[in-house]
Amino acid sequence: MKSFAIFGLGKMGGNMARRLAKGGVRPVLFDQDPALTAALAQELGCTAGTSPGHAIAQLTSPCVVWLMLPSGAVTEGMVTQVAPLLRAGDVLVDGANSMYKDAVRRAAMLKPAGVEFMDAGVSGGVHGLANGYCLMVGGSDAALKAVRPYLEILAPAPDTGWLHCGLTGSGHYVKMVHNGIEYGMMQAFAEGFAMLEAKKEFGIDVAAVSELWRHGSVVRSWLLDLTAGALKEDATLAGIKPHVADSGEGRWTAQEAVDLGIPTPVMSLALMMRFASQGKDEFGAKLLA
Amino acid sequence: MKSFAIFGLGKMGGNMARRLAKGGVRPVLFDQDPALTAALAQELGCTAGTSPGHAIAQLTSPCVVWLMLPSGAVTEGMVTQVAPLLRAGDVLVDGANSMYKDAVRRAAMLKPAGVEFMDAGVSGGVHGLANGYCLMVGGSDAALKAVRPYLEILAPAPDTGWLHCGLTGSGHYVKMVHNGIEYGMMQAFAEGFAMLEAKKEFGIDVAAVSELWRHGSVVRSWLLDLTAGALKEDATLAGIKPHVADSGEGRWTAQEAVDLGIPTPVMSLALMMRFASQGKDEFGAKLLA
Repeated sequence: MKSFAIFGLGKMGGNMARRLAKGGVRPVLFDQDPALTAALAQELGCTAGTSPGHAIAQLTSPCVVWLMLPSGAVTEGMVTQVAPLLRAGDVLVDGANSMYKDAVRRAAMLKPAGVEFMDAGVSGGVHGLANGYCLMVGGSDAALKAVRPYLEILAPAPDTGWLHCGLTGSGHYVKMVHNGIEYGMMQAFAEGFAMLEAKKEFGIDVAAVSELWRHGSVVRSWLLDLTAGALKEDATLAGIKPHVADSGEGRWTAQEAVDLGIPTPVMSLALMMRFASQGKDEFGAKLLA
Repeated sequence: MKSFAIFGLGKMGGNMARRLAKGGVRPVLFDQDPALTAALAQELGCTAGTSPGHAIAQLTSPCVVWLMLPSGAVTEGMVTQVAPLLRAGDVLVDGANSMYKDAVRRAAMLKPAGVEFMDAGVSGGVHGLANGYCLMVGGSDAALKAVRPYLEILAPAPDTGWLHCGLTGSGHYVKMVHNGIEYGMMQAFAEGFAMLEAKKEFGIDVAAVSELWRHGSVVRSWLLDLTAGALKEDATLAGIKPHVADSGEGRWTAQEAVDLGIPTPVMSLALMMRFASQGKDEFGAKLLA
């Protein structure tokens, strides 16, 4: 009896399907790339959906359909496409980094048909497969009840690493703030290592320092682990362009802070520094020059 | 044969003496508080020095004298007092959060007598006793050779958690930058949790979120562990004044960034936010009002 599907089998969705399969759940799979869908279905012994409708037709209601797609137009298009195919008691989960207000809107859209909506912030990246994902979910108690068995497999442990944050939207709100904090932490590390690298007379081995700080220091963290890994590859970072992308969540955090009237100077400035790295500071710099 | 002394038995120095004793080294102890010195000496089976001179008289040269005192005037006074008592080949270690340029000056002062100086940045706080300290040291190879056996005990493991960063001053420089990064990370967490708390309609359990993020999330870190501990005690933080102290290292990091001409907006702004929390923004706010 199949009652769980995952749509979107990229870096996140594909590994989440693998972790669920290791935990005894064989999700029905769908991706816009049929070859990717077929290959993963074969790897995991799962059913491959050839279309969203075909995938949902494999499921026994009440079912859970978990979207793991790019946020924005792609997720919006899929929600619209899937909504009429779901029945009362089914749950649609959005695992993308979507704006939390979209969750409120989508839940209201599905409610008349008795379909539940759950917003799920997912952190952990490519390491989630082995270690489990950190999951922040929002929605009704009924939605939670249906989704909980899957959260317990996806998380690092059944009772650890997932949280029902509150009503619809709260999961993506918490994930948004989480990413805002991440921006600030990353910028702090970037600035600190730049100061070590710039102090030429000491000839500091920045890769060795990053490794050192992982052990017993106050700044030890997963982001430092990643930093140490990158600096171990090439401490000069010679092959990397100094261009930092920004995601919707960084911008939404700054906008939400303005709406709330709460000072978040460091998180907001970290975002502005990403804009600067993208060359968006050039006109201003020309003017100053 | 005693060849190691530790001066200053507060939260840091006292526990470092305990960790050394567990590792088989019985340091000669000295603190300005004779009762504290005597009690710890009894606890650890060590020799208590009744004065700096008395403590050093217990040591066989070449010896290592490790100062674990408040930075600034107290450390400066002790360096001045101890310097004439040390002999060629002895090593004086400054484990305080001293300005790195002081290390260069002190090393030059001791050099004519053949006394080595080592600057040691020590991170790990009160948890260092159990888990080991993260140690960033600067100085000559001769100084390192003398101090290394003690670093190997103080660190989390003999080959992990200590680093000879380079020449004199480099240890305290790396520790300074470490603390600058810590300021930025702390501010990012503070801002994020303020946004969770301010979003009243979701009624988010900030203590539960802090615990959640410890597992599998990208922002997991020791500072988050400490945050979760504090919020578990009282998620409203009702008993805490919103006044954040700043240390010398935060200020020096900002000043050094200016000297280097390296942009460190987030670390510097985190410092400014501490000044604001101390009420130093009030005249400006009055003017704006």
